Amino acid sequence: PDEQAHRQAVARHAGLTKPAGSLGRLEEIGVWVSARQGTCPPRPFDRPRVVVFAGDHGIATNGVSAYPSEVTAQMVDNILAGGAAVNALAANAGAGVRVVDMAVDGETNRTVAAYKIRRSSGSLDVEDALTEQQALDAVTAGRALADEEVDSGADLLIAGDMGIGNTTPAATLIAALTESEPVAVVGRGTGIDDSAWMRKTAAIRDALRRARKVVHDPVALLRTAAGADLAAMSGFLAQAAVRRTPVILDGVVVGAAAMVAEELVPGAARWWMAGHRSVEPGAALVLEHLDLRPVLDLEMRLGEGSGAVAALPVVNAAIRVLGEMATFAEAGIEGP
Amino acid sequence: PDEQAHRQAVARHAGLTKPAGSLGRLEEIGVWVSARQGTCPPRPFDRPRVVVFAGDHGIATNGVSAYPSEVTAQMVDNILAGGAAVNALAANAGAGVRVVDMAVDGETNRTVAAYKIRRSSGSLDVEDALTEQQALDAVTAGRALADEEVDSGADLLIAGDMGIGNTTPAATLIAALTESEPVAVVGRGTGIDDSAWMRKTAAIRDALRRARKVVHDPVALLRTAAGADLAAMSGFLAQAAVRRTPVILDGVVVGAAAMVAEELVPGAARWWMAGHRSVEPGAALVLEHLDLRPVLDLEMRLGEGSGAVAALPVVNAAIRVLGEMATFAEAGIEGP
Repeated sequence: PDEQAHRQAVARHAGLTKPAGSLGRLEEIGVWVSARQGTCPPRPFDRPRVVVFAGDHGIATNGVSAYPSEVTAQMVDNILAGGAAVNALAANAGAGVRVVDMAVDGETNRTVAAYKIRRSSGSLDVEDALTEQQALDAVTAGRALADEEVDSGADLLIAGDMGIGNTTPAATLIAALTESEPVAVVGRGTGIDDSAWMRKTAAIRDALRRARKVVHDPVALLRTAAGADLAAMSGFLAQAAVRRTPVILDGVVVGAAAMVAEELVPGAARWWMAGHRSVEPGAALVLEHLDLRPVLDLEMRLGEGSGAVAALPVVNAAIRVLGEMATFAEAGIEGP
Repeated sequence: PDEQAHRQAVARHAGLTKPAGSLGRLEEIGVWVSARQGTCPPRPFDRPRVVVFAGDHGIATNGVSAYPSEVTAQMVDNILAGGAAVNALAANAGAGVRVVDMAVDGETNRTVAAYKIRRSSGSLDVEDALTEQQALDAVTAGRALADEEVDSGADLLIAGDMGIGNTTPAATLIAALTESEPVAVVGRGTGIDDSAWMRKTAAIRDALRRARKVVHDPVALLRTAAGADLAAMSGFLAQAAVRRTPVILDGVVVGAAAMVAEELVPGAARWWMAGHRSVEPGAALVLEHLDLRPVLDLEMRLGEGSGAVAALPVVNAAIRVLGEMATFAEAGIEGP
């Protein structure tokens, strides 16, 4: 981030026709964007992009989700057809949506599967989710996707997740990196009952035994307890920072990938803002760990990038305020 | 609100391609709009309108604000010129902005002053803010403004406030109607220092002595402790409900007017949602009293309708989700 643009934006806000600080967090968000763009006033986003990382997880066969794994591929088609929540929210926010198959347990079309690593990631309770090479390849794919988007003009990136069972590896990563117990990170995901909750908690416990041994090696951690979708998201979020492109984070799954991305590229988190506070317990730990305050708190828990893209119009509002409001001098108004 | 549309919207949400309830408050907001529009799915708002009620207050000469009263008229011009926060936020949300002079202590143009009641309302610490007739006329003007807007096609209304000193009458109304002490409702307004805070608290205390005697008579309460701007806002918000037009409420000043409007037309609050939680202490009391949960919580305290219009894109997102998402059946996806 650009310190000079940051200072200019703070100074500009102080001169706009409103009591100092009266727009609260909208002011902070505008300043944040200014510093990431390196310019004041900030520019409205020209090409915000959501990339949804789809992948299945072997653990889903343990009954940790309210849905069967088949739904992942069906939802990929639904996103392609424009019928998913992320499509409606992105249309509302003026953002484009792309979905990529990193490890769907089924066939998707060639474009969507261009970076596919494997069919379903391993069942992390009993085996590594990925091989070492697959973990590296997935991170590289995520980086390549960020590069593709930025090279195509994207000036804001959002990662989304789609995959039955994906909150189980997410919770495991969060527990490992925050040194939390399984019960502190496990959530209801798609809306599971008590017995599924117990199976999910046990799976996280078993995966954590192995994950904790490699917690200081981010690629090994992704190999052990993530999956190709989460590993690719980590690469994507890390590379967004390398490319100096701001990111709005979504909920628990993206948050887990973000925590690993911060291990891959320390300081990357400075390029990320939190779109919302998910009701998933692990999401709160991510926000605390990365020291991020969310824009929205709407009790969402969908994934797909939905909470991030729901926040985008508020971020746009913050940009417009800083760019379009008159100063006291311009309006001929007496300051305080 | 339409119970059948409400039920249809709840049922529709349950069939959309996402885990039940996973969009949290976005789902509730979409259902809320459906019930107010009497149709499911809800229609995107065609003509959302912000009406900013400008007025000065005699109490401002007591030093209860960080700004002099001259700023009110200057800010009216700023809003007309498109340079205020509400203009930038409304442009971002696709809403139109109108400003009306109810009691500005200065000249404004004929259109803006069409409903003007007087120059500045009385200093509520030592005198009634309005005469009985002025209070009635202001409420009638607010009702007429709501009618004008609805008759011109407005399908969502937002009231905004602009007036140096206006959080003092707002705090007084809130204290009277919630039986609170002055210290529980007084806030920093435009950003006052401790001595101004003490003067403001004393003014609220003095005004409350008279306001409490008429707390069961809403027009007498407006006469005693409101002002032409707040009285007109009360009429506007009450009439929006009469015209079955949904409203997004802003912060402490609009909230105070809304509490009186609910006294004028009991049940009117069912047509209002809360746009945000202002940092003004009185605003929290309004939310509790009217049993409203805010959409945003961004530490804003500007007025002008800014917090309501900042929330509008999120409300629009909720409408689009309910209107545009595919159902499980349409997408050929297995439900839970």
